[in-house]
Amino acid sequence: MTSTVEHRSAHDRTTPAEAVTPRLELDVTRALEGYDALVSTLPGTAVHYAVKANPDPTLLRALVQAGSHFDVASQAETDACLAAGAVPDDLVFSNPVKRRADVVSAARSGVRLFVVDSPEETRKLAEAAPGARVLCRLVTSGEGSDWPLSRKFGCSTGEAVAVLRLAATLGLDPAGVSFHVGSQQRDPLAWRAPIDASARIFATLRADGLRPHLVDLGGGFPAAHEGGAPPLHCYAAAIHSFLGRAFGADRPDTLIEPGRGVVGDAGTVVTRVIAVLSRGDVRWVYLDCGVFSGLVETRGEAIRYRLHTPGLEGPTGPCVLAGPTCDSTDVMYECTPVELPLALAEGDEVRLQSAGAYTSCYSTVGFNGFDPLPTVLV
Amino acid sequence: MTSTVEHRSAHDRTTPAEAVTPRLELDVTRALEGYDALVSTLPGTAVHYAVKANPDPTLLRALVQAGSHFDVASQAETDACLAAGAVPDDLVFSNPVKRRADVVSAARSGVRLFVVDSPEETRKLAEAAPGARVLCRLVTSGEGSDWPLSRKFGCSTGEAVAVLRLAATLGLDPAGVSFHVGSQQRDPLAWRAPIDASARIFATLRADGLRPHLVDLGGGFPAAHEGGAPPLHCYAAAIHSFLGRAFGADRPDTLIEPGRGVVGDAGTVVTRVIAVLSRGDVRWVYLDCGVFSGLVETRGEAIRYRLHTPGLEGPTGPCVLAGPTCDSTDVMYECTPVELPLALAEGDEVRLQSAGAYTSCYSTVGFNGFDPLPTVLV
Repeated sequence: MTSTVEHRSAHDRTTPAEAVTPRLELDVTRALEGYDALVSTLPGTAVHYAVKANPDPTLLRALVQAGSHFDVASQAETDACLAAGAVPDDLVFSNPVKRRADVVSAARSGVRLFVVDSPEETRKLAEAAPGARVLCRLVTSGEGSDWPLSRKFGCSTGEAVAVLRLAATLGLDPAGVSFHVGSQQRDPLAWRAPIDASARIFATLRADGLRPHLVDLGGGFPAAHEGGAPPLHCYAAAIHSFLGRAFGADRPDTLIEPGRGVVGDAGTVVTRVIAVLSRGDVRWVYLDCGVFSGLVETRGEAIRYRLHTPGLEGPTGPCVLAGPTCDSTDVMYECTPVELPLALAEGDEVRLQSAGAYTSCYSTVGFNGFDPLPTVLV
Repeated sequence: MTSTVEHRSAHDRTTPAEAVTPRLELDVTRALEGYDALVSTLPGTAVHYAVKANPDPTLLRALVQAGSHFDVASQAETDACLAAGAVPDDLVFSNPVKRRADVVSAARSGVRLFVVDSPEETRKLAEAAPGARVLCRLVTSGEGSDWPLSRKFGCSTGEAVAVLRLAATLGLDPAGVSFHVGSQQRDPLAWRAPIDASARIFATLRADGLRPHLVDLGGGFPAAHEGGAPPLHCYAAAIHSFLGRAFGADRPDTLIEPGRGVVGDAGTVVTRVIAVLSRGDVRWVYLDCGVFSGLVETRGEAIRYRLHTPGLEGPTGPCVLAGPTCDSTDVMYECTPVELPLALAEGDEVRLQSAGAYTSCYSTVGFNGFDPLPTVLV
């Protein structure tokens, strides 16, 4: 009981803003290091930061200053990039299915590069953004990734050829192809099949007299989540090798769309323990942050954050980790329990590391009356 | 192509606020009818509206005027009810695991009735809200419900007796028990087992000289989703019968915590079609509202909204229904496709009916740059 009472006293003091929990601590310098690592490891490849991962305005401004390009999914993201100082030619509008009004607005803003994956969306683009540059997105298996992306988007090699031919007949520029091997992709070999497919598509289109020249290699570059992943240079070496094998000397222009790979390791979600309960033989730890306040990627226990409990030593044991709402689906890790100190008690801090991507932006507007996850720059 | 171009023209006109999509159209009068139906069908049972289902301030004020009590899950929800004119004695703080600061604040606000389900939280309550009235939450199976709630909360009959005895020794008022049979519960028989358990707990505690008197029958009362559910009077008859059989003439006070049962049928999510695409043999319909802008309850295709396409006649066919973001998990119905008119095209309206509960409050802050689902009162 003693520790509990001490914690209560601590809570009753007026709390400085930087100590409010839950919060996302975002280290913009660390994100720039992530960006620089990708630039230097993949020379000659344009890095388009995927704004959806974390649209913090300070982060966007810093990335513009560092020379980053951007991957946007909506007009709001386009506007955010332009407001941060990006120029329209630095953007790829990569959502393959877009509101017509968003295409019109993006084209008016000067955006020229769009991804599609269907004849229908190619026609929409030709009407709403005449003469735009087009990438056609290929389907991938998503195998090897913790958050696969393939089911909803992408077309086959043959369909891509048809889409890019259609684009040409509609006055668009059939610039090339795009694919995404799945977020938090642990297997660098995942890039091989879609790069091979890209080369086949390029060869077919070139035989038609078209001039595709750009391959959007997507995202998938990992953050330091549980389970590990190969170092970045292994991804770069694999991609370089696959491009050489597939395209020979006629290597295409390339771009990548990293989100997690830039900002994932730059953020920490700082939470406090609401309660530690014994339910039967199972220890349940309830945090003040959960699935509805930013931890959506724990769904299906897909993304497993590394946990840190500052100042707590001693033995650890398994526990289920749950969020603060009265919704029973607000449980982060149950099938595979996490290891936390046995001394963990109400009021203690639990830090979810490498949580800079897909947290603050995934938060609900306030389910159960709990505020959205705030960002604190550190 | 003709219809597409017409739709584009329609979109380019300045759109009045009430025609913006997506939006939640909320009919407060219809919600009050839902409240009245519960009051009249379950006479003698206090109706505590579950604020988490939809915390719209106009709705809360109307419910206060109608005499509703409230079920709150956090300090923010408590504050919202008091701001709407509720008195603290009308509230039950039903989240079984609470931030200590929230308990302190609620008690300071005058809230007296709290739900717990563990010795740990009982001790917290005794310290933070001395003398409060306590309900102990029982675990239920969740069987028969579309959105089960049992895993994270609730304790066994024996544990509940221990918790309520502990409450008494700590100076709290062991008022009774609470349970929740799962949201959108289709089976009125689901109330039998927990009511029987409640009676056994009451008998044991009364033999101790304690005076439990209140059973919180929870929520679970259905909205008119696909799949149907028995009429409300069947629930009332079943509950009345189970209470009589279990408690005899010594019937306890009762309350219910309906959320969906009040506001579900009072809301319609109005969306427009972004695109209709053929992917292989499958028709994919992309709406401008999705999993990240309010349709979280389609997760696992659990809640199936009835769909309406105004003005569209003719034959229908199956399709996958997806949301607007570039996230592949933003798919509402795929395993079991929905039937929509074959004539459905870009720009057409698709209305998701009985969507007043757990939509606007579940929306993200703006994932992919798409705004949270706004509410328009109708």
